[in-house]
Amino acid sequence: LVSFGAIGKDHPSLILTSSDVKLMQEGYGKSPLFRTNVDRVQRELDAEMQRPLAVPVPKDAGGGYTHEQHKKNGRLIMNAGVLYQVSGKQKYADFAANLFLKYAALYPSLGEHPKKKNQAPGRLFWQSLNESVWLVMAIQGYDAIYKALDHRTRQNIELNVLRPMADFLSVGQPKTFDKIHNHGTWAAAAVGMTGYVIGEDDYVEKALLGLDKSGKSGFLKQLSLLFSPEGYYAEGPYYQRYALMPFVLFAQAIETNQPERKIFEYRNSIVMKAIYTTVQLSYNDLFFPINDAIKSKGLDTMELVSGLAIAYGMSGDNQLLDISARQKRVALTGGGAKIALARDAGKIVPFQFKTMKLSDGAEGDEGALVILRSSDKPGHQALVLKNTSQGMGHGHFDKLSWIFYDNGQEIITDYGAARFLNVEAKNGGRYLPENKSWAKQTIAHNTLVVDETSHFHGKWKDGQKKSPEQLAFDETETIQLSSAVMRGAYEGVAMTRTIALIKDPELEFPVTLDVLKVDATQPHLYDLPVHYNGQLMDQSVVLKSATSGMRALGDKNGYEHLWLKAVGTPKEGKLARFTWLTDNRFYTLNTVSEEQSQFLFTELGAHDPNFNLRREQAIIHRIPKGEKTIFVSLLEPHGDYNPAVEYTLGSHSQIKSLKLHKRGSYQAITFTTVFGKRWILTLSYDQDKQKTHQIKLGDKEISWQGFYSLQTVE
Amino acid sequence: LVSFGAIGKDHPSLILTSSDVKLMQEGYGKSPLFRTNVDRVQRELDAEMQRPLAVPVPKDAGGGYTHEQHKKNGRLIMNAGVLYQVSGKQKYADFAANLFLKYAALYPSLGEHPKKKNQAPGRLFWQSLNESVWLVMAIQGYDAIYKALDHRTRQNIELNVLRPMADFLSVGQPKTFDKIHNHGTWAAAAVGMTGYVIGEDDYVEKALLGLDKSGKSGFLKQLSLLFSPEGYYAEGPYYQRYALMPFVLFAQAIETNQPERKIFEYRNSIVMKAIYTTVQLSYNDLFFPINDAIKSKGLDTMELVSGLAIAYGMSGDNQLLDISARQKRVALTGGGAKIALARDAGKIVPFQFKTMKLSDGAEGDEGALVILRSSDKPGHQALVLKNTSQGMGHGHFDKLSWIFYDNGQEIITDYGAARFLNVEAKNGGRYLPENKSWAKQTIAHNTLVVDETSHFHGKWKDGQKKSPEQLAFDETETIQLSSAVMRGAYEGVAMTRTIALIKDPELEFPVTLDVLKVDATQPHLYDLPVHYNGQLMDQSVVLKSATSGMRALGDKNGYEHLWLKAVGTPKEGKLARFTWLTDNRFYTLNTVSEEQSQFLFTELGAHDPNFNLRREQAIIHRIPKGEKTIFVSLLEPHGDYNPAVEYTLGSHSQIKSLKLHKRGSYQAITFTTVFGKRWILTLSYDQDKQKTHQIKLGDKEISWQGFYSLQTVE
Ligand SMILES: [Zn+2]
Ligand SMILES: [Zn+2]
Repeated sequence: LVSFGAIGKDHPSLILTSSDVKLMQEGYGKSPLFRTNVDRVQRELDAEMQRPLAVPVPKDAGGGYTHEQHKKNGRLIMNAGVLYQVSGKQKYADFAANLFLKYAALYPSLGEHPKKKNQAPGRLFWQSLNESVWLVMAIQGYDAIYKALDHRTRQNIELNVLRPMADFLSVGQPKTFDKIHNHGTWAAAAVGMTGYVIGEDDYVEKALLGLDKSGKSGFLKQLSLLFSPEGYYAEGPYYQRYALMPFVLFAQAIETNQPERKIFEYRNSIVMKAIYTTVQLSYNDLFFPINDAIKSKGLDTMELVSGLAIAYGMSGDNQLLDISARQKRVALTGGGAKIALARDAGKIVPFQFKTMKLSDGAEGDEGALVILRSSDKPGHQALVLKNTSQGMGHGHFDKLSWIFYDNGQEIITDYGAARFLNVEAKNGGRYLPENKSWAKQTIAHNTLVVDETSHFHGKWKDGQKKSPEQLAFDETETIQLSSAVMRGAYEGVAMTRTIALIKDPELEFPVTLDVLKVDATQPHLYDLPVHYNGQLMDQSVVLKSATSGMRALGDKNGYEHLWLKAVGTPKEGKLARFTWLTDNRFYTLNTVSEEQSQFLFTELGAHDPNFNLRREQAIIHRIPKGEKTIFVSLLEPHGDYNPAVEYTLGSHSQIKSLKLHKRGSYQAITFTTVFGKRWILTLSYDQDKQKTHQIKLGDKEISWQGFYSLQTVE
Repeated sequence: LVSFGAIGKDHPSLILTSSDVKLMQEGYGKSPLFRTNVDRVQRELDAEMQRPLAVPVPKDAGGGYTHEQHKKNGRLIMNAGVLYQVSGKQKYADFAANLFLKYAALYPSLGEHPKKKNQAPGRLFWQSLNESVWLVMAIQGYDAIYKALDHRTRQNIELNVLRPMADFLSVGQPKTFDKIHNHGTWAAAAVGMTGYVIGEDDYVEKALLGLDKSGKSGFLKQLSLLFSPEGYYAEGPYYQRYALMPFVLFAQAIETNQPERKIFEYRNSIVMKAIYTTVQLSYNDLFFPINDAIKSKGLDTMELVSGLAIAYGMSGDNQLLDISARQKRVALTGGGAKIALARDAGKIVPFQFKTMKLSDGAEGDEGALVILRSSDKPGHQALVLKNTSQGMGHGHFDKLSWIFYDNGQEIITDYGAARFLNVEAKNGGRYLPENKSWAKQTIAHNTLVVDETSHFHGKWKDGQKKSPEQLAFDETETIQLSSAVMRGAYEGVAMTRTIALIKDPELEFPVTLDVLKVDATQPHLYDLPVHYNGQLMDQSVVLKSATSGMRALGDKNGYEHLWLKAVGTPKEGKLARFTWLTDNRFYTLNTVSEEQSQFLFTELGAHDPNFNLRREQAIIHRIPKGEKTIFVSLLEPHGDYNPAVEYTLGSHSQIKSLKLHKRGSYQAITFTTVFGKRWILTLSYDQDKQKTHQIKLGDKEISWQGFYSLQTVE
C-alpha cells in the first residue's frame, strides 16, 4: 500500500514554503517590480485559461506541435500553482488540477515516443530529457496546489502521472539516471523532487545516491564530478548556464526538506560557487562564447534568473542584485520577492567581476579557464584564456586560445557556434554543417595551427585525454599573468603560452603581451590567427592584395572557408604591426618572431553556398617552416575616434619597439613607448618561486625570482 | 577717424545680452545640468590658462600644429568671454584680452598663408573659411569682455585684429564674400557680427546685402537661396548641420541688434525651419547618410547644440528639450540656460518626428527629400526617398534611391562617405579614393543602374542640371505614398518610382511596396541593387555560389569593388524572395518583374588593396535585356529572433503572393498574406485628383480617383 502524501507534512514545501509565500505576497503589495512580474505571468495564464485544455497524444519531435504543447503544459502547471499560492484564487488550482487529470488519463497508455532517436526516449517527448524537465516543472505545481486537492484527485494524479513518470525516469532508464551527465542531473532532480512532495523516501534516496543507493552515482556524485572545485563546468559557459538549472532547483528542494544535509555547504559550497562562477563567465552581460555557444546568450537567461533567486534567498548578497538588474525578470519565488524588494529599496551593490583562474576537471587538474580583467568597471579590458579540457562533444579544438574584450566590445573574437537557434530555414535551427567544418576547427580560433590541421586531428574523444597544464598565474597592481603548456594536441609538439595584461600610468590603456613558445622535434608550417573585430586602418607590412579575383586558402580543416584577401611581407628588420578601429578606439597588434614570416589577411565566407557563416576576418601570422620558435605580440588599445565632434586622438601606436631576447631556456621581451619608458618581461618558466635567475641584456644584468619578472626602465 | 565701439551701446550684445547673462547665472545656481556644462568649460579653460600663450606664426595646413592652435585660440577667447560674464572673474577677461593682444602684434604683419591652395587663402589659416570661423568665435569673446577693457586696449584690438580681418574677409576677397555658398555665409556672419560689436554699420550692411549693398548677394540673399522653402539644404543633412551654424549665430546677432529686421520671421521663418528640418533629417539620433556623409554624425553635433539653444531661446518649444536630452552638452548661452532649467524641471515633450516631403531648391522645384515614418515612436519604420537635386560636388549619383530604417537600425543602407575623419593613416583623414570610385557611384545605392554606368556618367555638373519631379505625396492612416519621376539621368531613359508604406492590423509590421517603372527607347542592361544590413537566412532562387574562387563583378563605375558571391535564378513562375535577419527581426524582400531576371549576391571589397571599404553586401536584381519594364518589390519585416530565451517566432514571410497587373498605362499590384487578406494598389500616374480611372482585374471592376488607390479584399 502506498501513502498519498506524507501525513502532516506541510505544503508547499519544495521551491516554495509557506514563508516564501508570505514573502511573495509582501512583495506583491510593496514592490512594483515584483508585482509587474507576477502580473505578467498572470496575464499569460489568464489568456491560456480561455482556451480548451490541450494534452495531445505524443507525435512530434522537438519543435513540433505536441512537443511544444507538452513543454508549455509543464510550465503552465507550475505557474498556475505559484499563482494559486500568491493570489489564493481557486481557479488557478483548478486549472492545474484539470491539466494534471488529462495527463492522468493519457500517461498510463503511452509507450515509447514514436519519434525516438539515439537519445534515451521519453513518452511525452522524443527524448527523456524533456520528460525530466516536465516533471521538474509539474511537481512544483503539484506541491503548490496539493492542499487544494481532495484525496481522490491526489490519488489519481500520483498513481497515474507522478509515480509512473518517476519510475520511468529512474528504474525505467537506469543508464541515463545513473550517468554522470547533465541528463542524469535532470532525471535525479525530477525523481527526487517528486519523492519529497509525495513523501516517497525511496525516490529521494535513489535521486541522491543512485539507483543502488551506494552513492557511486546520483545527485551528490554529480555535484562532485560535473563541476571543478571552483564551480566551472567542462562544456563551457553556454552549457554551464543550462546545466545549472536542475542543480540549483534540486538543491533548494533538499534544503527545504532535509536541511540537515546542508546541501549548500556540500563540497565547499559547490552549488553557490557554480552560480557565482556562471556570472563571472561573462563580459558586458554576455557569456564568453567558447565551445558550441550562441553568442547572444547572457546573464539574462531564465536559468540564471532562477539561480539568482535561489542564491539571493540563501545569501542575501546584494552584489547579486546588480546581476538581477541586468535581467528582464525576477523569479516568482521567495528569493525572487526578496530580490525585488531589495532592488526597489536601492540596495544594489556592483557585482565584483574578478581576475581568476578557474581550474577545470572534478579534481581541478585538467587545465583551467583563466580570466584577466583590468578592473571591474564597465568598459574594462578582459582576457579569456582557454586552457581547459576538451569539454566533450561540444568542445572546440582551441587549446590555449584567447578572447580579448575592451570598451564593451569583443575585440579579438571567438566565432562561437555556427547555428541560428530555432530558425527553421537554417537546418531546422540545429547546428549547421559549418559548425563542424568551421566553428570547431583550430584555424577558427586564436591559437596555433600546425600543418593546417586541427588539434587532435579534430577528434574530440582524443581531445578528452589531454589537457593543458597551467604553469603560472599571478596578479599584482601592474601585471596579471598566466602561463600554460599544452602537450600532444599535435604529435611531437608542445606549445607554451604566456599572456600578460600590463598596466602603467604611462600607457593610455593596459596592454597585452602574448608569448607563444613552440617546441617541436620536426619542421612544421605554423599559423597563428588573430580574429579581430574592426576595420583595418594601417599596417606596416608590404601588402599584396587580391583585387579582381580571390581564392580560398585551403580545402579542409576550416581553411576552405577562408578567402585570402591579401598577403603581407614584413619590411626587413621592422616590427610588423596592424592597427584597426573598433567602435571609437584603435587597436594595434605589434608582432615579432624569429623566423621568416608572412601575414595572411583572410575573410570568412568561402565554400559557404548557403550564406551560413558570418562575414568575419583574421590576420594569420604564418611561419612556413619552423621548428622551435616563439611568436611574440603586444596588443595595444589607443586613441579616440570621435567623428561626432570631429576629432581623432592617438590614432598612432605609442609602442616604439618590441623585441625578443633569448638566453638559453630563458626569454626576455622588451618594449618601449614613444615617451621613452622601457618594459622588460623575463621568463624562466621555472615554477619554483624561490629560485633566482639571471640574464644579461646588453650590459644590464637582470635577476629575478621565480617564473617571471616585469621590470621597467625610465 | 574711426570710433572705437558705438558710444552708449550696451555690451554684451551679440549672442549674449545682459538678460542672457542673468539667465545663465540663474542656471548656474539652480540647474545641476547647466552648472555641469559651465564647470566643464571652466576646467578646460583653467587648465589652458596654466600654459604660456601660444600664438604662432602661421605655417601648417589643416591638422598641423599652427592650424590647430589658432582654431583653439578662437574657441578659448570665446569661452573666456562667456566665463567672464557668468562668473564676473577678471582673470578670464584678462586671458582673452592677452590672447587678443598677441594677435594684435602678429596679424598686421601677415600676408597670405604659406600653405594656400585652390581655396580662397586666409592669413592665420590656409583657407579663409577657417579665418571666418575664427572671427565668429573671437568677436563673441570680444563682445563679452568689452566693458572690462580700457580704451587703448580696445583701440589696439580693433585696429590691428578685428578691422583688418573683417576687411580682409569682405573687400579683401570679394568673390568668396559675395558667393551664394556656405563659405560666403561664414564670411558674412564674421563681418556682420564684428560690425555690430564695434559699431561699424558699413560692415553690417555689406554682410546683409553684399559688398555693393544691393541685396543681390549677402546674408539675406543666402537665406533666400541656400535653403529650400521647407528649410532643406541641397547638399544633404551632413552638410546642412555644418551650414546651419553661421546662419543661426548671425541671425541671433541681428535679432539682438536690429530686432526691427524681424530676421527670424524672414522668408516664412526660414532660420527656424532649417533648424527643425535638420532634426527631422535623422533616425535614432543619426543623420540620414545621403551624399558625402560620415555615418556617425547625428543630433549630438556641436552645431546642433548651438542651433537648439537659439531655437529654444526664441520659441520655448519643449519638444526641443527632447533633442537636447540626446546631446551631451548644452550651449553656454541664455537659450542654453533656459534649456537646462526646463530639462531639470522635467518639461521635456517628445519631439514629433513626422512624415514629410521637403522640397529641394530655392524655389522648391528641384525635386524633394521624402521621409515616410510609420509612427513617431522609438523603433518606428522610416523611409528616406532621395528625389532631390544633385547637391553639388558632395552629391552622390543616387537619383530616386531609398534608405529603410526599422527597429532602431538601418536595414536597407546607404554607404555614406568613404572616409575616416582625421585618421592620418587613411589618406590624412580626407575623403578616400574609394569615395569617388565606390561611394558616389550609382551601383552603391538602392536605385536603378543602366548599362553598368552611373547617373550622368558620374559628372556632378551635369547632374546639377536635372532634378526629379515629385508626382505624388500622400499620407493616410493606412498608406503613405510618394511617387517621383527622373528623366535624363540616362539618355533616353525615364524612371518613375512609387514607394508606399502600408499599415494594416493584419500585418505584423507595416510593409513597403516599391514600384519602379522604367521607360526606355532602346534595350539596356538594368541593375537594381538592394544594399541590406543583416545575415541572409533564406531565399527562393536557385543559387550558384562561388566556393573556392570569387571574381570582381566589373572593372569600373563601382562594379570593380563588388565580389560576386552567388548568382540566383528564380524558379519559374515563382516569386523571388530573400529573407535576412537584422538584430532580432527578420526581413523578407519579395520581388517580381516582367523580364527574365537574375539576382547577383555581392560583397564589397574587391580592388580595395588598402582595406578602405567596409564589408557590406547587396542583392542586385538584374534584367540583362530590358526596355520598358517594371520592378516590383515588397519589403516585409517579421518575427522575433530571441536566442536569449530560446524562442524564434515568425521566421517565415507572411506574404503568399505578389503580382503585377498591367492595364495600358495603368498598373495594379496585388499581394496576399497567408491569412487570406488581399491588397490592391492601383496606379494611374495621373496627378488630376478628380479624374476617375477604371480597370478590370479578373472579373472584378476597380475604379478610383486620382494618382493611386489602395483597396483590400478579405
Ligand atoms: Zn570556438
Ligand atoms: Zn550615397
